[in-house]
Amino acid sequence: MNAHVSLNSEDSDPYQDNALVVAVVGATGAVGRELIRCLENRKLPVGELRLLASARSAGQLMSFRDTSLPVEELTGDSFNGCDIVFFSAGATLSRKYAPLAVRAGAVVIDNSSAYRMDSTVPLVVPEANANALAPHAGIIANPNCVAAIATVALAPLAQCWTVSRLNMVTYQSASGAGAAAMDELRAATQAHLANEPFEQKVLPHPYAFNLFSHNAEIDEETGYNGEELKVIAETRRILHMPKLPIGVTCVRVPVLRAHSIALSIRFDGYVSPEQVRACLAEAPGVRLVDDAAKNYFPMPSDATGIDEVLVGRIRTDLGDPSGSTIAMFLSGDQLLKGAALNAVQIAETLISANAA
Amino acid sequence: MNAHVSLNSEDSDPYQDNALVVAVVGATGAVGRELIRCLENRKLPVGELRLLASARSAGQLMSFRDTSLPVEELTGDSFNGCDIVFFSAGATLSRKYAPLAVRAGAVVIDNSSAYRMDSTVPLVVPEANANALAPHAGIIANPNCVAAIATVALAPLAQCWTVSRLNMVTYQSASGAGAAAMDELRAATQAHLANEPFEQKVLPHPYAFNLFSHNAEIDEETGYNGEELKVIAETRRILHMPKLPIGVTCVRVPVLRAHSIALSIRFDGYVSPEQVRACLAEAPGVRLVDDAAKNYFPMPSDATGIDEVLVGRIRTDLGDPSGSTIAMFLSGDQLLKGAALNAVQIAETLISANAA
Repeated sequence: MNAHVSLNSEDSDPYQDNALVVAVVGATGAVGRELIRCLENRKLPVGELRLLASARSAGQLMSFRDTSLPVEELTGDSFNGCDIVFFSAGATLSRKYAPLAVRAGAVVIDNSSAYRMDSTVPLVVPEANANALAPHAGIIANPNCVAAIATVALAPLAQCWTVSRLNMVTYQSASGAGAAAMDELRAATQAHLANEPFEQKVLPHPYAFNLFSHNAEIDEETGYNGEELKVIAETRRILHMPKLPIGVTCVRVPVLRAHSIALSIRFDGYVSPEQVRACLAEAPGVRLVDDAAKNYFPMPSDATGIDEVLVGRIRTDLGDPSGSTIAMFLSGDQLLKGAALNAVQIAETLISANAA
Repeated sequence: MNAHVSLNSEDSDPYQDNALVVAVVGATGAVGRELIRCLENRKLPVGELRLLASARSAGQLMSFRDTSLPVEELTGDSFNGCDIVFFSAGATLSRKYAPLAVRAGAVVIDNSSAYRMDSTVPLVVPEANANALAPHAGIIANPNCVAAIATVALAPLAQCWTVSRLNMVTYQSASGAGAAAMDELRAATQAHLANEPFEQKVLPHPYAFNLFSHNAEIDEETGYNGEELKVIAETRRILHMPKLPIGVTCVRVPVLRAHSIALSIRFDGYVSPEQVRACLAEAPGVRLVDDAAKNYFPMPSDATGIDEVLVGRIRTDLGDPSGSTIAMFLSGDQLLKGAALNAVQIAETLISANAA
């Protein structure tokens, strides 16, 4: 067993019995609900599942496999006996409770931004940098959704060729701002269609048939917003390219739960669209959707509810006269690869490394 | 009077009487309706307005100023006595009827793609290249909506500094595919909210809370779609930069009638965001919406129904290590600056040059 991983079920092989005690902090949120679905559907051997949330949600019943489980209030004592705790309740709660979970002997997989740039905490997309998992001190960070979706396609390309620059322009769904934002998009749109007034409460701008620059705070020095700076820093970290020049524009669009990204990748020298297509055809977590004859390419409606990141529109970027830039278009489920699925895949990778 | 301009009302100053006989071909379409509104609201001296459309729409009444005008069927004889004919009924009809209108003595302002790349036909955005209007042979082309909106912001920058590359990623509204596509977006969204099935007829992909690569045919050689190639060719023509490297990704988003564009502009050398902001603050047709403190930037909801192109998020693009690229975000009304308004502005520029 990896000495850096502390799992309470030390004397049992988790692949031989359903030994893991797993907790989900933020169980009632958009990502929390998807975490529970992923734990139901995938191979992680869950023996006991604890659903944790604020006092407000405590007592609520949620289904898991054939049973109903009550949501419990998150406290400092919630983690006794836990092997793995997924956090998806914001950076403040992660900072407060993740160290308690680690002290109780659990491995924390944190979906918030709290630890992503902490050099002692691995930031992991298993298809891209599973090797970064090995030395950890109890906490593993799950990346920002745009960085997670993009690096699934970028990492295999960066393994084949030297990437010298990136440009990303995003089409981000409501789910990135939580379940309440998804509800607000539906309600605002319903009101718009009925020609009725609607007051936004979750997001700061009209959302029905509208889009807007991501509302994360703007950094005075660069003019980039907080979301864009996260995408830059985390993409660099996951790709192990700390100085890669990356331009990003993050935009919220009226789509429910899949993010899309228009991506330009500059290589050191010419790489053909066919080479890129061949590389991505073999890449784990990628599904090529690149049918020029039928004009069929990645779309949120197709990416919703599936594990793979859809990649298409692969072509030489005509904006780079050197011909060494490839343009492409991605769609990935924000709640799955952008959050819950990636977190569960991290746990699976960890457990399978321990079992080996 | 400019010898290249043939207006029937030769012996009268059109600014002294309401002398112009104006026709709108495609009067019942999304752009046609906006053309009529622009002709109502702006300074072009319209004495008589003829509304032309297919036989199917003939007889329909449309309001103009205080009267109701009947839609007439478009025929080869529709243009007798016309001074200006606006075409907005597709390239096939423009190719067939525009020469007849010119033969009848009218100036044609064509909103279709039929003549945009014809070197004998000016392609004009008045704020960007009004000087290109002068030598014409009766037809003036109104550009693609993305090219029109983008060049309002690009031309003043290209006048101040040398632009060496462009990258555009679009968020295009339903209106670009016509009034039927706008109706389809509303209906598909209504059905989605009611959890009812919906069959798309106008656009080829699900549109409710979804987005997709622009459905113009893909060019086999470049992998770019027809819309993207138009944007490249027309932007180059309007800016008088026939070899400017331009990368474009055109995407249809579930927005009703304003296009947005994430734009990166590479200059020959460093230009600061402040310099760009100062240049654009003085540029005709541009409204700066760049409030970082309030996180308030261009949005379709604000661009809808107004003449100006909104420009914001002006910052140094971190994807270019040389620091000579500026990123920005634009929103402009597709039916106004992207189509009807620009066409009427072309007519105004023409008339005012004749009157001078």
